[in-house]
Amino acid sequence: MTNVAVVGAAGRMGKTLVAALHQTEGVKLTVAIDRPDSSLIGADAGELAGIGKVGVTLASDLSAHVADFDVVIDFSAPDYTLENVALCRENGKGIVIGTTGLTDAQKQTLKDAAETIPVVFAPNMGVGVNLVFKLLEMAARVLGDDVDIEVIEAHHRHKVDAPSGTALRMGEVVAETLGRDLKTCAVYGREGQTGARDRNTIGFATVRAGDIVGEHTVMFAAEGERVEITHKASSRMTFARGAVRAAGWLADKKHGLFDMQDVLGLR
Amino acid sequence: MTNVAVVGAAGRMGKTLVAALHQTEGVKLTVAIDRPDSSLIGADAGELAGIGKVGVTLASDLSAHVADFDVVIDFSAPDYTLENVALCRENGKGIVIGTTGLTDAQKQTLKDAAETIPVVFAPNMGVGVNLVFKLLEMAARVLGDDVDIEVIEAHHRHKVDAPSGTALRMGEVVAETLGRDLKTCAVYGREGQTGARDRNTIGFATVRAGDIVGEHTVMFAAEGERVEITHKASSRMTFARGAVRAAGWLADKKHGLFDMQDVLGLR
Amino acid sequence: MTNVAVVGAAGRMGKTLVAALHQTEGVKLTVAIDRPDSSLIGADAGELAGIGKVGVTLASDLSAHVADFDVVIDFSAPDYTLENVALCRENGKGIVIGTTGLTDAQKQTLKDAAETIPVVFAPNMGVGVNLVFKLLEMAARVLGDDVDIEVIEAHHRHKVDAPSGTALRMGEVVAETLGRDLKTCAVYGREGQTGARDRNTIGFATVRAGDIVGEHTVMFAAEGERVEITHKASSRMTFARGAVRAAGWLADKKHGLFDMQDVLGLR
Amino acid sequence: MTNVAVVGAAGRMGKTLVAALHQTEGVKLTVAIDRPDSSLIGADAGELAGIGKVGVTLASDLSAHVADFDVVIDFSAPDYTLENVALCRENGKGIVIGTTGLTDAQKQTLKDAAETIPVVFAPNMGVGVNLVFKLLEMAARVLGDDVDIEVIEAHHRHKVDAPSGTALRMGEVVAETLGRDLKTCAVYGREGQTGARDRNTIGFATVRAGDIVGEHTVMFAAEGERVEITHKASSRMTFARGAVRAAGWLADKKHGLFDMQDVLGLR
Repeated sequence: MTNVAVVGAAGRMGKTLVAALHQTEGVKLTVAIDRPDSSLIGADAGELAGIGKVGVTLASDLSAHVADFDVVIDFSAPDYTLENVALCRENGKGIVIGTTGLTDAQKQTLKDAAETIPVVFAPNMGVGVNLVFKLLEMAARVLGDDVDIEVIEAHHRHKVDAPSGTALRMGEVVAETLGRDLKTCAVYGREGQTGARDRNTIGFATVRAGDIVGEHTVMFAAEGERVEITHKASSRMTFARGAVRAAGWLADKKHGLFDMQDVLGLR
Repeated sequence: MTNVAVVGAAGRMGKTLVAALHQTEGVKLTVAIDRPDSSLIGADAGELAGIGKVGVTLASDLSAHVADFDVVIDFSAPDYTLENVALCRENGKGIVIGTTGLTDAQKQTLKDAAETIPVVFAPNMGVGVNLVFKLLEMAARVLGDDVDIEVIEAHHRHKVDAPSGTALRMGEVVAETLGRDLKTCAVYGREGQTGARDRNTIGFATVRAGDIVGEHTVMFAAEGERVEITHKASSRMTFARGAVRAAGWLADKKHGLFDMQDVLGLR
Repeated sequence: MTNVAVVGAAGRMGKTLVAALHQTEGVKLTVAIDRPDSSLIGADAGELAGIGKVGVTLASDLSAHVADFDVVIDFSAPDYTLENVALCRENGKGIVIGTTGLTDAQKQTLKDAAETIPVVFAPNMGVGVNLVFKLLEMAARVLGDDVDIEVIEAHHRHKVDAPSGTALRMGEVVAETLGRDLKTCAVYGREGQTGARDRNTIGFATVRAGDIVGEHTVMFAAEGERVEITHKASSRMTFARGAVRAAGWLADKKHGLFDMQDVLGLR
Repeated sequence: MTNVAVVGAAGRMGKTLVAALHQTEGVKLTVAIDRPDSSLIGADAGELAGIGKVGVTLASDLSAHVADFDVVIDFSAPDYTLENVALCRENGKGIVIGTTGLTDAQKQTLKDAAETIPVVFAPNMGVGVNLVFKLLEMAARVLGDDVDIEVIEAHHRHKVDAPSGTALRMGEVVAETLGRDLKTCAVYGREGQTGARDRNTIGFATVRAGDIVGEHTVMFAAEGERVEITHKASSRMTFARGAVRAAGWLADKKHGLFDMQDVLGLR
């Protein structure tokens, strides 16, 4: 059994992590931390997460609970995350980090810490998305230049950039496998007299509509058949479950900097 | 029983028409015509179409068989089609025309002919596509400005224009119903910092890959739900079946110029 | 502007209704009611709904606020709904009812009330689903017996019945339009040597997986083409928006019993 | 350059093989064989295939052309295939076999032959389908028992068995990876009060409609996300292309019995 501390446990991601821990065998929430000025300190972390009492009350200081956890899960902000990394390093604890926006210097600090403690650091903890990256690599390797490759993605109306970062990463995985440069082979829209398709391009089709959480399909189309690999996200639970899986996986590692491809055994 | 003449019966569309007539109750192939210089004159039209003998041999002169048909189906070329229209007009026969590329003058000739004979003229005879146009109109009317509307289409790698004519027509149907102008509200691609979606736009996403015959989806997305109306073509049989349906429908009309919306009872 | 009272305003559906009212022009939340024993009486209904203060505090007795609303929206339980119907009847108010499980006697009471006040009563208030029922009727009428019809639905792993009530209703709409009896023509699974498909059947394919809120597709497949009409629900907001639309529509009706087909202008 | 003989070259599969060879670099049609009683002996194999003259005339006796090919592609019938295997064995040629229905004794003969010549033998030569089998194995291994798994397949109205052999094979690949027995965990239809889904089942949903060539999707659904792997066939060209790829791959092998997983480098 791996004992897990969640920081930011009263936030949206924190509550989802508490629920995900509750659903998963082999891991257990033992410490729940939030900001000292929160009016919720002292409340039961499970009740806050809408899953009923779990017997862990929200506390404000992680260092006061070092004896009670093996691994921290942290989706907070860079400065606070670095504090937690230092605490883990001093006490020989593992840490799973989903925080984004770290500077290069902060990433170097992570790397240094990983020489003595185990760290999982990944911008997207989703098990499914990380699996899909690997499936795409295999599909591109097998189908090679015999197919036309298109990436179709759909997100909610509030998304301000296009294509999504995940769609671009999918394109990169495919391009790298095939020895292409996405910068020169990507096509982001088609209008008018386009001429026949150039096999070496990778097309992106972008849908923005309603409240779609996030859907990505990569199509590999030959004459006579198509293979399509699709990922559909419906909630942030997917990220929480990946982080919880990482926490369990980390428990018996001595030290090292890992990402989700390591956790999922996809290297 | 409606007796039907097919012109261009040894061509790809003609053979499909012969097969479609064979499958449909209430209509019967009685005359099959092709170019006088064809080496196939005298062959059985059914054997040519791959459906076995039907007892109608390929002939070269429609005017020699006027007694044997009620309606002509014509997917040939403008000049030849106009000859056939003249012949039908003289003999009081109906005609179903899927020929594209007619000049305005030729269209006027059709219109004149339709004062005395019944004519069905439609650039796309597909029953499904014409139904979808009507479904889109109803959906747009009911859902109105509460939804984001996106048109997603996919065609084979050899298609030289984008979006497809059918996709644009779908966009027009929606735009007209909502009092928008497609010219100013269409978005044909998204790249970079696009900002949040403007509700009044209609987005087009275009896929070009493999041997896809033609797929169109119009998505109406609100917060909490989506309605999607999809058409997928797999062969030219869809156009042939529409034309055959038009021929049967035309049989008891006295005169008039009709399109597929009339044939399908969608007005 | 239509003034709207929401009963059960602190429940999950009630909070969604409060949010939907906030998003919609022409309607306004003016009264929010919950159980007298709720610890939340006196809280701001908007804050409870997670949309920020709206200036309407949760109260416990609808009859004390009769002057403040034109229409009630009620997704509660049969007995309480009938109380609210009686109150509306006495005071000449409209009511939109999404409550399920009414007895025949209770439905008769509704009908009687509708002789003097306007009532919208519908088991599924979703705008999209009600639109889809109408689209299906039109598609079935046009495509008739020339197509194979299949209903494919997917729901989350916790759903205990199959196919879904909505899928069955879709099948009924199609069957009724085509003069078939769903009881005898439905096929709920295929295994082993089934033989070729009988055109007159309507097939149901049922997927149960993950946390899928609800997806329904009806496929009409001819030789050469397919038309597919799809509905995807992502949250209960779809029902709330339909109810709010019904409340606005009801405002200028004198009396009568209506359903969502009336509200949406689909009769 | 690999010189290839096609047997049954005037049949539907044979003509598709001729066209596929024509499209592919590194292989070349040099011998085309059909039944001695065919009226087409002496015709150009390319013209028969609808791709224009290729300079190879249809012949009737493979043994008379041994000097002209390196590899045979054979999608004929068991007895004739075994004759061709014997011929290849005597002359040290490779053979790609797509013939189905071989007895166990005939399969043993293949195995014996493969001690001295290279043989590719696979019931489904499609590159995409074989890739998908491998993708499914990887997805099942990574997602394990955290997901619900459903197989959805659609075929044309004339198909007499359900689910398709390919769908069942997909289910087996997943079941084997997860240590389940498909015989006991497969669910082929759902109707009535089914109760909540059992995670250990694998569901099959079967659609029969129109002229759908063959579509398969395997859905892996967790709480919060779905991964879907889809294969869509549009013509037998997919099998021909796989066979041609196998022929090119075989050219430098000394001996051995291989399947498409070997050809595609998926072991």
